[in-house]
This record gives sequence, structure tokens and C-alpha cells, in this order.
Amino acid sequence: MPLSLVLRAIVTVCILVFSAKILGELFCKIKIPSVLGELTAGILLGPYAFGSIITIGGTPVIELNEIVRAFGEIGGILILFVAGLEMTFTDFRRVGSSSFIIGTTGVVVPFLMGYGFCMLFGLSAGASLVVSAALVATSISITSLVLQELKRSKTVESKTMVSAAVVDDVLGLAILGVIVSFISTSATINPFNVCLIVMESLALWLVLVVSASLLVPKIINLTSRGKSEETVEAAATASCFGAAALAAYIGLSPIVGAFAAGMAVSSSNAIEKIRDYAKKISTIFSPVFFALAGAAFNIRSFITDDIWFYVFFILLVGVAFVSKIVGCGLPAAYFLKDKNKGLKVGIGMMSRGEVGLIVAGVAISAGAISQSTYAAILGMIMITTVLPPIWLKRSYDKEPPEELEEKDPPDMIPTYPL
Amino acid sequence: MPLSLVLRAIVTVCILVFSAKILGELFCKIKIPSVLGELTAGILLGPYAFGSIITIGGTPVIELNEIVRAFGEIGGILILFVAGLEMTFTDFRRVGSSSFIIGTTGVVVPFLMGYGFCMLFGLSAGASLVVSAALVATSISITSLVLQELKRSKTVESKTMVSAAVVDDVLGLAILGVIVSFISTSATINPFNVCLIVMESLALWLVLVVSASLLVPKIINLTSRGKSEETVEAAATASCFGAAALAAYIGLSPIVGAFAAGMAVSSSNAIEKIRDYAKKISTIFSPVFFALAGAAFNIRSFITDDIWFYVFFILLVGVAFVSKIVGCGLPAAYFLKDKNKGLKVGIGMMSRGEVGLIVAGVAISAGAISQSTYAAILGMIMITTVLPPIWLKRSYDKEPPEELEEKDPPDMIPTYPL
Repeated sequence: MPLSLVLRAIVTVCILVFSAKILGELFCKIKIPSVLGELTAGILLGPYAFGSIITIGGTPVIELNEIVRAFGEIGGILILFVAGLEMTFTDFRRVGSSSFIIGTTGVVVPFLMGYGFCMLFGLSAGASLVVSAALVATSISITSLVLQELKRSKTVESKTMVSAAVVDDVLGLAILGVIVSFISTSATINPFNVCLIVMESLALWLVLVVSASLLVPKIINLTSRGKSEETVEAAATASCFGAAALAAYIGLSPIVGAFAAGMAVSSSNAIEKIRDYAKKISTIFSPVFFALAGAAFNIRSFITDDIWFYVFFILLVGVAFVSKIVGCGLPAAYFLKDKNKGLKVGIGMMSRGEVGLIVAGVAISAGAISQSTYAAILGMIMITTVLPPIWLKRSYDKEPPEELEEKDPPDMIPTYPL
Repeated sequence: MPLSLVLRAIVTVCILVFSAKILGELFCKIKIPSVLGELTAGILLGPYAFGSIITIGGTPVIELNEIVRAFGEIGGILILFVAGLEMTFTDFRRVGSSSFIIGTTGVVVPFLMGYGFCMLFGLSAGASLVVSAALVATSISITSLVLQELKRSKTVESKTMVSAAVVDDVLGLAILGVIVSFISTSATINPFNVCLIVMESLALWLVLVVSASLLVPKIINLTSRGKSEETVEAAATASCFGAAALAAYIGLSPIVGAFAAGMAVSSSNAIEKIRDYAKKISTIFSPVFFALAGAAFNIRSFITDDIWFYVFFILLVGVAFVSKIVGCGLPAAYFLKDKNKGLKVGIGMMSRGEVGLIVAGVAISAGAISQSTYAAILGMIMITTVLPPIWLKRSYDKEPPEELEEKDPPDMIPTYPL
């Protein structure tokens, strides 16, 4: 019997989630961030690869219909909600001035370098904005996992990185908000307009964060006293989805709203319960997001006789590396008074990861960038996600381990042999 | 800025989930099963009530679009998956012969009484099948919660009820499979066809259950050894969705497949983890299912000058009560050699709850029953869900509490004052 739209979507979600997790698991074993495994699952199962080949009775098994796309979109929202849960508004205000400056230059330098580079290559102003926004966002989660594995998460440079990444995230998301405004309103891009929209987006975002952090914890604390099961979880879901929709309504990106809701929820009493819940819920949505990001990637874009594509791609990766070394590494070396540690901060903040993918995903589905620009961004994100952890590990391996032992605070989590 | 389809769906889901939970919580406080609160939220927010009134800028805030419907459909699948998780295939085989007979008569009697009653009232054969299928399914979850509250869950009649309800559930779902076959293939309804499809559905379902219980636990046990987060949860989701789609593919109802997957998963090692996960995931989907069931209910169907509607409704409720007393209570009184206990079994198995709602929901969306038949079924389900717990409590209150103390096995869970 032919399956209904929903059931075809369910089959696709079930295949995407399962294979994303299996590949994530395999990548994890060879020490590559599992998010890249999920992305690879999407590339392999997408319409440009095996997705069009695997069929039952002539119809493809994997069908990226509107319900699957809705799952992916909700996945993006939940990823940022979970990221927001890790950070309170108080944390954000407590970031030291040095981290604040490192985070800011770490956004401004890649953005300007990326924008200039793309304009030189003759990309449209819109596409240049997208590429430079994708260059901005640091995925500190991957780096912090590596630092934890190396038992260096309590070092001064690692704390600097994490604090700076907080600022980086917030500013990066503000830029995303601007990009979305440009794509959707098709305003003319001139310096005055850009400044206006940046200020407007930042102001709106701040209003959203402040009002969410006043209102949401009260709702959560109230519902956490309830007796029937999962009421507080339902309230958290409602906050996340509500803030996402509100953000979209006032012209920002929905994921920016979800991040604000996450930050707001994180200062409520029920944070542990909600964090556990949000991670579980993400299991079914986030892999779909990454898989869809992968599915939109056409490997054939890399097989072209247009030599300029290769030049563009290689230089883009170069800009991605250099801009974070300059934007984060230089100021860090100045503040920490240590070139070596500065370099480590630069390397550590290089991973682009999920936020970059979200920027590129929003842009390609809005038609703001071409297939080949999308392919170049994805390739850049993959390289900047795989290499820095390896590089960071090498640079720590060179240091004498004694130094580490001395510097470790006593409350470090012990590790057990596996 | 106007919201996209997905964001409008998210707003609706967020409102439905939150208000369903709030009403569920309120109903819980006045000792009415919370599922009825979720249903009421749907009735109140549906298009026949306030749903069409609450608007922003002329467009209704609550929009039951295809993505919201997909959430509801997935909710139905997850409800049955969670129900299946509570029951292993071994449990099912271990049910005693007396419970097996009580469960079977408890399905056959309501089905035949309901079918005869509807045909007498001039309903079509298809609609009669739907009504009688809705009369069959026992929602033991509500009764077992009440029994736990009354501290009677270890009594002989309560064990009989639960075991019989297992049989009842399985047969009820098989009947649902048959109904779906009839609705979708529009086969002529004659005794021979009915028998053929019943046998075919039962056989297919058994094949599905047996193959799932051989294959799924192996996959789950394999993935539960994984290192990256939530791999086993992803495998459980894939089993649930995969089995649902497979069931639909071979012509059964998808929820029957989800139930089989749940039963299969329940004999794996990771059952506790998966049970917790499945309940969390359901938080976001199940209330949408109940709310949509409520939203399809038009209260105006009850305001009619057609006196026969009222007669039909009252007699339907009567059939619902009598058929379970006769179908379950009589054989129970015979096996337990106690009229009083038999009556309690009959009362306890009266609640129709979620499975009845699923039958009615599938039927109305397929156009197999009229608005007024749907309203009558929903009214019947609400009454049979609210009254039996109260009735059961009264009948236990009459008994001397000493008897309870003596009969309780020593391993009873102690309860603390609230």
C-alpha cells in the first residue's frame, strides 16, 4: 500500500537519524567530531549521491519532503536552544574585558577579511555577506571536548577561549540576524543600511534576551511545581518555540530567538531536568538538520573545469585559518603575554561547526548563494572542523607534561582507563 | 514579517502542548485523568471553538496545517510505542488462560453488541465497524493509575484486569488493523471478507511482532555499547518509525507497528533508558495528538433538533457500560468465584481512553464516519474515562480496609503522605 506523506517522512527521518548516529559513532572512534559524521550521512544519502539510487518500486526511499524539512528546521532551532542552555545571561555579563575584546576581534576580523575577499572574487554583496557570516561563528563545543580529552580544560588559555567564544557566538548570531533581514527584505546593501540593520538587530535581540530572561524563568519555576508528568518540559518547549517564532516575527532569525530562550531557561531551577530533556528531544531532530545540510551538498561541484573555483576554495580555507589566528590569536597573545598560548587560542577558535552550517543552510534555501558557493562553504567548514582539534593536540603534545600536572587544579575530573 | 509554514506550525504546537499540559495538570488536581485535560484543550482551541477567534492581524494564531497534523500522527505512533514498551512478548505469552478468556470476551462482546446496535440504528456498515472498534479498546493505564492510588494494584482482581487488558489491547489493535484495511481498500463488507481480513491482519501482525522481537533487541543491544551520545535512543526511534512504516506498507495501521516495536524493544538491555527517552519525546508529540482529536470535535453536534442523535448517544454510552460488564465482569466473576470482584473487573476495564480516540481519529480523517457519529464516540469515550475510576473508588471504599491489609503481599510499594 503506498505510504502517506507523513509516513514517507517518518521513513526518511528514521533512516537519516539512524545512519547519522552510526556514522557519528564511527567518526567518534577515529577521533573526528561526530557532527561531521552526521553531515557525511547526509551527503551520502542525499539526492546528489545514493539518495536517488535507493528505491522501492521506483520511488526513492529517502524523500526530503516538507515534513522532513520541518524536522530539520526544528533541529536547527533546538541546537541553538541547547547551546543557550549552557550559558546564562549572568555568565555573559561576567565575561572579562580581555575575553570580550578577543571575542569581538574574532568576529570583526574574519567578517571583514571574508567580505573583502569575496568582493575581490566578484561575488554579489549578498553572497559575500553569507560567506563572511559563515566565517565568523566559532563552534567551541568541538574544541572544548578536545580540551577536556587532553585534560587542559582548566588552563588559562582554555578559559579565555570559552569566554571569548561566548561573545563570538552572540555577535555571530547578531550578524546572522542581519543576513536574514537582508535576504528577506532585499534592502539595498550600502554602509548606512548595514549599520542601521546591525544596530536594529542588536537592539531587538537585546530586548528579546532581557524580556525572555525576566519572564521565562518565572514560568518554568511555576510549572516545575506541577504534579502531572513532563509539565516543566512542555513549558520549556513552549518557551523555545515561542521565542523562535517571536524572533522571526520581529524580523530576526528564529534560531536567534531559540538561543535567547535557552539562555533564559538556564537561570531557572529546573535547568538540569530541561537540559536532559532538550538533549533527548534533539536526538530526533538535530541529526536531520545536519543530514539535510549534507544532502544539499553536491560533490560534483568539486569536479569542475573552472579553475577559479579551486582557487576560491583554497583561498577561502586560508582566510578561515588566518582570520582567526589574527582575530583571536594576536589579541590573546597580547593579553596572556605569551605567543604560544595566543596561538593555541587562535587554533582553538578556528572550528566553524554548526553555526556556520546554519548560516549556509539558511542562505541556500533562500536562494542567496549558488550551489558552488555552498559547496565551498561546506568544504571550508569541514576542514576547519577536522584540523584544529588535531593541530591543538599536537601543539600540546610538544609541551612537557609536568607543566600540566602542576597547573591542574585539584578538582579536576579523574579519567578512568576505558 | 509573515511567518513561514514551519514557524506557524511551531507556534501552534507550542500553544497546544503548553495548554494541554496546563489543563492536564488542572484535571489531575481534581482527580480526572490528565488525558481528558489534553483533549479539552484541543476542543477549546480547535476551529469549532476559540481557535477561529484568536487572531493576530486577521490570521488565526492556531493553524492546524499539515506539519501540525504530522506531529499529531507521530504522537499517536509514539503513544502506542510507549504502551508497547510496558509489555514484553514473554509477558504476553505468560498471560493465564482465565485472563486470556476474559480479554477475548471483553473484545468480542462489545464489538458484536456495538455492531448490532449501530446497524439497528441504520448506520452504514463502515461506520458501524468504527463505532464497535472504538467500543473495544480498554485503556488500562488510567485504571491501573487509580488502582495504584487506592493501593489495590496487587489484589487478585487487579492482576486479572491488567493481564486481560494485555489481550484486549492486542486484539483491539488487530481489529483496528482490519478497520484500516476496510477503509483504505473499500472491500465489500460481508462475513466472509471480514473473516478473511481478520485472519490476514492477525497473521501479518504476528509475523511483525515475532520478527521485530527477534531483530530489534539485537540492534538495540549492539548500539547500546556505543560511545557517542544518544545512539541507542536513535536506534529505538528508528525501530519505532521503521516498524510503523512497515506496518502501513503491508496494509496494517502504523500504530500497530509501533506497538510491536515497543514490545520488541522492551526485552532489550537498554529498556530503562529508552522508556525514559520515549516518554520525553512523547511530551512534544502526544499532546498534539490529543489536542487534534479534541479539535475535530464540534460541540454544536450536541445541539441539534434531531432527537435520535440524543437517543443514539445515550444508548451508545449504555452499550459501552453494559458490554464491558457482560464481556469482562461475567467471566471474571466465574473465574474468581466472586460476584463482587467480577463487577470490579468489569468496571476497571470500562475506560476507553487513547486507543478509542485513535480509532475515531483515523476514521474521521478518512471520512469513514460523520461529524455527529464522531461527536457521539468522543462523548462516550469521555464519559467512560471519567466515571469508572470514581465508581471503582466507591466500590472499594465500601469494603473494610482490614481485608486489604491482610491480602497485600509484603513487597508492596509504601506510599508517603503528600
